[in-house]
Amino acid sequence: MLIVQKYGGSSVATPERMANVARRVVSARLLGYKVVVVVSARGDTTDELIELAKTTNPNHSKRELDALLATGEQQSCALLAMAIQALGHHAVSLDAWLAGISTTSTHSNARIKSINAERIKLELDNNNIVVVAGFQGFNRRGDFTTLGRGASDLTAVALAAVLHADTCEIYTDVEGVYSADPRIVKNAVKLPEISYLEMLELASLGANVLAKRSVGLAKKYGIKLVVKSSMKDSQGTIVKEETKVEGIYISGVAVDKNIVRVNISSIKDEPGVWFKVFSIMDKGNISIDFIQQAKQDDGTKDISFTVAKDEVDGVMEAFNGSTHRLGFESISYHGGIAKLSVVSTGMATNPAVPSMMFEALFDAGINIDSISTSEIRASVLIDIDEADGAANLVHEKFRSGKYIKE
Amino acid sequence: MLIVQKYGGSSVATPERMANVARRVVSARLLGYKVVVVVSARGDTTDELIELAKTTNPNHSKRELDALLATGEQQSCALLAMAIQALGHHAVSLDAWLAGISTTSTHSNARIKSINAERIKLELDNNNIVVVAGFQGFNRRGDFTTLGRGASDLTAVALAAVLHADTCEIYTDVEGVYSADPRIVKNAVKLPEISYLEMLELASLGANVLAKRSVGLAKKYGIKLVVKSSMKDSQGTIVKEETKVEGIYISGVAVDKNIVRVNISSIKDEPGVWFKVFSIMDKGNISIDFIQQAKQDDGTKDISFTVAKDEVDGVMEAFNGSTHRLGFESISYHGGIAKLSVVSTGMATNPAVPSMMFEALFDAGINIDSISTSEIRASVLIDIDEADGAANLVHEKFRSGKYIKE
Repeated sequence: MLIVQKYGGSSVATPERMANVARRVVSARLLGYKVVVVVSARGDTTDELIELAKTTNPNHSKRELDALLATGEQQSCALLAMAIQALGHHAVSLDAWLAGISTTSTHSNARIKSINAERIKLELDNNNIVVVAGFQGFNRRGDFTTLGRGASDLTAVALAAVLHADTCEIYTDVEGVYSADPRIVKNAVKLPEISYLEMLELASLGANVLAKRSVGLAKKYGIKLVVKSSMKDSQGTIVKEETKVEGIYISGVAVDKNIVRVNISSIKDEPGVWFKVFSIMDKGNISIDFIQQAKQDDGTKDISFTVAKDEVDGVMEAFNGSTHRLGFESISYHGGIAKLSVVSTGMATNPAVPSMMFEALFDAGINIDSISTSEIRASVLIDIDEADGAANLVHEKFRSGKYIKE
Repeated sequence: MLIVQKYGGSSVATPERMANVARRVVSARLLGYKVVVVVSARGDTTDELIELAKTTNPNHSKRELDALLATGEQQSCALLAMAIQALGHHAVSLDAWLAGISTTSTHSNARIKSINAERIKLELDNNNIVVVAGFQGFNRRGDFTTLGRGASDLTAVALAAVLHADTCEIYTDVEGVYSADPRIVKNAVKLPEISYLEMLELASLGANVLAKRSVGLAKKYGIKLVVKSSMKDSQGTIVKEETKVEGIYISGVAVDKNIVRVNISSIKDEPGVWFKVFSIMDKGNISIDFIQQAKQDDGTKDISFTVAKDEVDGVMEAFNGSTHRLGFESISYHGGIAKLSVVSTGMATNPAVPSMMFEALFDAGINIDSISTSEIRASVLIDIDEADGAANLVHEKFRSGKYIKE
């Protein structure tokens, strides 16, 4: 029996919390599991190192930033190994190189290529609890790379896949995956389980519990994920392959206020315009939603779409650099909007879910700006000031109707 | 032309100082040198990490401490590479693994076994300034080891040897090697040059400018060392093979107040007693000096010697554990003494140096407790309260007589 556990930076921020994590790790060991633990850098270490790098040289090479950031996880790893040793158990820390986590060469956003887990297996066989540095890997030259923000989850899932772990537990500062953000929706319910697909949608919609790439990887290798609190003892949420259930359940109501609408006026109405627009977005790896277009009498059209707030500078820059190629008149953006979504795998075969959402909004007199749907998600664009209230209303509609599995 | 430069922790403690070091490194590059830079951890980083490790687990494994400490140098390396890049030059940081510094397995006090400098050479050929983490290596398992305190100098000298560097520059917070500690002796003179052997003696006598192991290694491979200030622009001191010079020169007057005298009374006066005493000292790697013995009428003898203050606990413990084997009556120690030494390679063939020291002390009425000499050193044990005055007198005797080369 082998278990992979992952603890985020806030869970190991102080020696006291580190000791608490060590106790949890040892509990799993005492249950008879071989244990591999993945940790992030302590507290704000990563942000502080980034700040220091900027002060030293705003145009530092990404390679050096990765070399610098890798130390954050190496430190928390070594300290956790010591904390486990303090409880009388054997433990070793392994950085990405020793853990055999080989990646592509793209610094600051590398992809895991393969994992040679010989050393990890050896240490497990030697009765050690193995503590692995999350977020980092090494490229073909042996240089440290990093996997992008929040990627310690990814390290944990990848190790679980390679080691054929029974479970991959993601410990975090919340108690699991909720049917809505508990800070916004007062009756939000902790879900006992959720499917990979639904979790992927929720992650895209801004639920920060699990990084999207990690869920994708877990889905690919069928790794059972458990998301739970590193502070409290509670069940947590199991993320796994969809199970056939009677009835329709929704897995979440999500509000994303971090979006703006981009309007482009008088763009040439000719074949290939949308292709050009999408290729600009693709280059910047920018997702767009709520696409609309309106033809004008002069043979041009106005188009609009939403993007994440922190992408908008990139969008404006890209379009302003393509004025000639696209031949539009002006581009502008405005905020004041929010995206309210309901996620449910049942939706694909049953239209009840979106219509219940629309009903709740209609009853409350909330105006819907536009609608966007996918196989397992229905989203509406509404006024940002009405977003929290709307989320509560919609959530309550489903909860009281027993459409949320508690 | 290749130069190895080493900067200590205080030289890179802040972004401003780091930028200053980067400027010095680039100056050497602009003179046409290929440059390899070795850096220590910034400021108090190492002490802080040790403290953190103790808080986490007072009985942590040495392996984990080494893994933790290694991050200190990795950070300063990456930051210095960034600071060099800020000046428009190419730079890469290499940790011990990437720099190929292979060591024995003894954690916290490993010895360098060999250096595979392929990567360093490759980066130099690619027009990079190469920044290497000091103080660390890796063992046959690939785990980080550390080389003991002050061992960044050792890293620099070893790299200079492997890379056949023209010079190894050790940048520090003093301007070079002085004929005496300038805080004690007001007319202390910065030496333009000193031989390896004299430097070794001075290092043993508590001059902290260069670690003894580094000088030994430099001597073994004939590496020309230059000790100079990282803050000021000045000549520094060259440490190299002894040159034949006319006349007798002394290289330093040293005061060591960090000693105590250990007295063992009524030890059996039989063959092998000193062998047993020395073997106890050897086990603890403890150096002793000023050995004296006095036979008693009852067929026993009293013996005494000096040891460094911070070794005395170990000495007491070792002897108290050997009471039966050595059959002595009591052991005690007392301070209040200091060791005043003059170092000169000319001494071996000319007795003028020790006699000038004795003359200076005699003229001032300073009582000499005992005397100890080696090939290139003459030391006296005196009252600690008279030590600073005596050092000034002795130093002035040699300086005014032109026995110190300025």
